[in-house]
Amino acid sequence: MWSAGVTLLSGGLDSTTVTTHALTKVDQLTALTFNYGHTHSKEVTCAQKIAKMLGIQHKLIDISFLADIAWYSSLTNPTRFTTPKARTEQEINSGVPITYVPLRNTMFITIAGAYLESQLLYAIEAEGYDSKEISGHIFLAPNAIDYSGYPDCRPEYYDKMRESLCYGSKLWTQYKVPMNIETPIIHLSKAQIVEMAIDLNVPLHHTWSCYQGNDIPCGLCDSCILRAKGFLEAGFQDPLLARPITG
Amino acid sequence: MWSAGVTLLSGGLDSTTVTTHALTKVDQLTALTFNYGHTHSKEVTCAQKIAKMLGIQHKLIDISFLADIAWYSSLTNPTRFTTPKARTEQEINSGVPITYVPLRNTMFITIAGAYLESQLLYAIEAEGYDSKEISGHIFLAPNAIDYSGYPDCRPEYYDKMRESLCYGSKLWTQYKVPMNIETPIIHLSKAQIVEMAIDLNVPLHHTWSCYQGNDIPCGLCDSCILRAKGFLEAGFQDPLLARPITG
Repeated sequence: MWSAGVTLLSGGLDSTTVTTHALTKVDQLTALTFNYGHTHSKEVTCAQKIAKMLGIQHKLIDISFLADIAWYSSLTNPTRFTTPKARTEQEINSGVPITYVPLRNTMFITIAGAYLESQLLYAIEAEGYDSKEISGHIFLAPNAIDYSGYPDCRPEYYDKMRESLCYGSKLWTQYKVPMNIETPIIHLSKAQIVEMAIDLNVPLHHTWSCYQGNDIPCGLCDSCILRAKGFLEAGFQDPLLARPITG
Repeated sequence: MWSAGVTLLSGGLDSTTVTTHALTKVDQLTALTFNYGHTHSKEVTCAQKIAKMLGIQHKLIDISFLADIAWYSSLTNPTRFTTPKARTEQEINSGVPITYVPLRNTMFITIAGAYLESQLLYAIEAEGYDSKEISGHIFLAPNAIDYSGYPDCRPEYYDKMRESLCYGSKLWTQYKVPMNIETPIIHLSKAQIVEMAIDLNVPLHHTWSCYQGNDIPCGLCDSCILRAKGFLEAGFQDPLLARPITG
């Protein structure tokens, strides 16, 4: 058996943990990072550093059209929405947040699938692999516990995505090779993700989770609050927040 | 009831016919054209002209990353494949052609869906429309008769796509508004499409179907052959090929 994987690496805690996990699961792994002019493009630099540290192929994909297409979101068009303020855990868990970007995950998975399908078709048609002896996997880091408000963080959505990727591909219709969608942390709490990251030796000090792009995490956005809670409950110090004592 | 639509307009005979049809079906229509450095970028100019003639909003979307991502295709990477030669109708209908671009239609539909979802969320959340009184539609021009080799031209694929768009969207999970996928010519022969186009007064002389980007259609590629066959069987002269007699 030979397996190829594509992992969606944003540079945050979750996707870096999933990417490190994916490295142990497939023979050939490529990380994709999307650049769409969001407010925290700092993640891109982190993703590049992380891919280099892990020694995997990395592609930065410019999808700047997203702000014009998926325009109804505070993430793609911050000026259309009020400044985010600190929200309670209850508020975070009720309804779909204003940071929701229409069909963003569907787009990310489809782009990952197109790259994966290209690799697998090439393996079959140009390199002579037996289609019964290869497999394809898309790794990503949705989470159903802490972000239950997002529609694209529910397991049933990924079942539907897998089917539409298969039905729309030559890989499945002609060779019966599916593109599997792997969501290894979907049922984990943030504390469990931190524990998994530590077990896997994830380079945590290079990850960036904050929605803002400042030098230090804002500590107020949904993402900062959930990350802090995760480290607290797991009983670990977040290396990103560890500062040398001066003066 | 208020309805919004997004139509995928490549500038070819099929998509122009579907777009003209869509104009009669929804209250607000936007045409999207994708630019991905394919060999027949001439279509883009045709699409812009056609949208202007039909008086609809038009967006040109740069997805030039496609050649790098969906790289295993003669359309995105012509140098990787041998020069296309004229193929018989039987050859066209057997297997998936080398012009197949991995998951291209899935990507196009997802981008259309992201724009449609933005419009409908705005209608509900900012303009106060009742979610029970609005509908959303994505129009596109796949065809199951002449292009049976393409996996993304089969009706069952669109059933799966509709489900994954719904399950991955706030529009469906929160408001129960689906994004419908409309494929009005999927069961028509090319001759029937030509007849439909003539009935709808489609500006046929501005459409461009050829895979090559020359001044006149090559007459040899799959697309030229099927278009010629359609006009012949429908008993009409293709206005694109009508040349003034000189000399």
